[in-house]
Amino acid sequence: MSKGRVTVVDIAEAAGVSKSTVSLVLQGSPLVGEATRARVNAAMRDLGYVYNRGAANLRQSNAKSKIIGVVVNDLTNSFFAELAVGVDMVVQSAGFVQFLANTGESIDRQSEVIASMREHGVSGLIVSPARGTTAKDLKPLVSAGIPVVLVVRNVPGAKVSSLVSDNRAGTVAAVEHLVSLGHRRIAFIGGFADTVVFAERLEGYRAAMAAAGLEFSEDLVVPSAPSRAGGVEAIGRAMLLAEKPTGAVCFNDAAAFGVCDGLRARGLEPGRDFAVVGFDDVIEAQTAVPALTTIAVDPQGMGRRAAQLLLKQINADKADAEAITGAVRLVVRESCGAGQGIFGRKMA
Amino acid sequence: MSKGRVTVVDIAEAAGVSKSTVSLVLQGSPLVGEATRARVNAAMRDLGYVYNRGAANLRQSNAKSKIIGVVVNDLTNSFFAELAVGVDMVVQSAGFVQFLANTGESIDRQSEVIASMREHGVSGLIVSPARGTTAKDLKPLVSAGIPVVLVVRNVPGAKVSSLVSDNRAGTVAAVEHLVSLGHRRIAFIGGFADTVVFAERLEGYRAAMAAAGLEFSEDLVVPSAPSRAGGVEAIGRAMLLAEKPTGAVCFNDAAAFGVCDGLRARGLEPGRDFAVVGFDDVIEAQTAVPALTTIAVDPQGMGRRAAQLLLKQINADKADAEAITGAVRLVVRESCGAGQGIFGRKMA
Repeated sequence: MSKGRVTVVDIAEAAGVSKSTVSLVLQGSPLVGEATRARVNAAMRDLGYVYNRGAANLRQSNAKSKIIGVVVNDLTNSFFAELAVGVDMVVQSAGFVQFLANTGESIDRQSEVIASMREHGVSGLIVSPARGTTAKDLKPLVSAGIPVVLVVRNVPGAKVSSLVSDNRAGTVAAVEHLVSLGHRRIAFIGGFADTVVFAERLEGYRAAMAAAGLEFSEDLVVPSAPSRAGGVEAIGRAMLLAEKPTGAVCFNDAAAFGVCDGLRARGLEPGRDFAVVGFDDVIEAQTAVPALTTIAVDPQGMGRRAAQLLLKQINADKADAEAITGAVRLVVRESCGAGQGIFGRKMA
Repeated sequence: MSKGRVTVVDIAEAAGVSKSTVSLVLQGSPLVGEATRARVNAAMRDLGYVYNRGAANLRQSNAKSKIIGVVVNDLTNSFFAELAVGVDMVVQSAGFVQFLANTGESIDRQSEVIASMREHGVSGLIVSPARGTTAKDLKPLVSAGIPVVLVVRNVPGAKVSSLVSDNRAGTVAAVEHLVSLGHRRIAFIGGFADTVVFAERLEGYRAAMAAAGLEFSEDLVVPSAPSRAGGVEAIGRAMLLAEKPTGAVCFNDAAAFGVCDGLRARGLEPGRDFAVVGFDDVIEAQTAVPALTTIAVDPQGMGRRAAQLLLKQINADKADAEAITGAVRLVVRESCGAGQGIFGRKMA
């Protein structure tokens, strides 16, 4: 409960605006310009004002909360930390605070955190759904009219906006690149086989292998947890094959880093003895040794776009669901051996 | 606003408990046993019950919110993701939901997210303070009687509980280990020089260097952002010295990974040509190549202990502040060269 000492009048005076402008800012109204909003927020901060949203929500049914909820399926993957940083960039300047919750791939936990965010009057949610999430799981949000943007993983049949990467185009580009470097035995490493993202990335891999006249072999598809440890384990299995791969398109960067670790543990240097391509382009991909060749998704950029899409829906009151597929691009660094030439050949 | 269709009576029936037990669970009361709480939570989930906490807080002034707020200074450091996972383990089973917010080292943002969490009736906060946080910044929380546990970084003069690592003992152990392997030119790499943690870790480094009869040289202390990129940059500066170091005690694991990257970029292999010791023992330290020798802080364990300390305070209503210093231990892996013997010498 606020101590009630600092009032809206105090804030209006300090910020040099009217009382009703302060009220509009408190309600997150889009009618207030950015400079004014910043001045009012600064005055509230200086005066130590704490807005009692619980009371305000009951007093005034259309008062809007200033929270954006972000629900992710695996906080230990740095992709999601970067996505959250991107969301923060946009929502901060719009006067919102981001509350982040981790489901660790548990649908039960996902229901709990979403329910808790609803109780606390979240303005909208950005959700990277846990494995196995169905449209039914999201229905309560849709019924309640809460704006939702799904990121990374789409949920078939869910009537909410989504922002996913062009997964198929990404793995097509990765395979084409390895083929251009002379590889024929290319593995697809990592990822949970029961997700939509896996299916889309595998489809790109298969299509590009076929286009290059290379036979598809089930043996070369080695799923695993989409983590560093998963990548270590999966490359271990792949290297037991009678006909070993010479390169791998990995489900994500985390798995690709694990593949590099696993190769070194076998005395093979990634980028020299074996070609590795990741997917995501997390910050670490640039500074790793060898620097990771990968499909850039731009997690921060995805966070920013998701936040913009969500704010648009929040401010529009009722907006149609949009499905956006973000473009991806191949970023050639060192782990694929381009430039240095795998098998001792210098590629131009 | 809850649709009001599912009632406390429905839940009590489904869970096979009394109405007042359901109420106690909704209030987060410590009087309800774990098994009963789980049964009631499961029933609420199955029935799709959404608790309208805003209304309940006004109806009943001592109703407790079910949120634990966790405020961290750098979400892109995986240390904090692991800490959050540890917090989740404990607070979930106590019937709380964790909301995480990132300040990115901004004190202004920290004030905003803490104020927002207060508005939403957070039961307590776990805070890894942004750089430059003072006791004054935390005073509003103390005055309002909100339980707070500071983690990682203590704030001098703040009258709240804290859980930090034994930073001094950690770097003492790291230096002693490198000295035992024959190193004399040992650098201290990474970290922001204006933090308490840096001062404590540097103090341990200085004390252990002195105890080993090694001269302290300002040149060998190379601060940087406590990140992978910071480590790359700092080792670059250290290797420009006329008398180059042969090993480094790093501020944290993130910087240590950067040091390994930077060494490789100069054609030096960490663990063979140069000894690297980290601090934290993040999950990646085990699977990295070479595996990182480091000071184990156990971030998940720290998250669990912080959550337990916080729950104790929440349930005690008024508890004295406790200051806990967690023990740390040296974990010898490969990056220090122990076992393989730096400089071609085989160490026992």
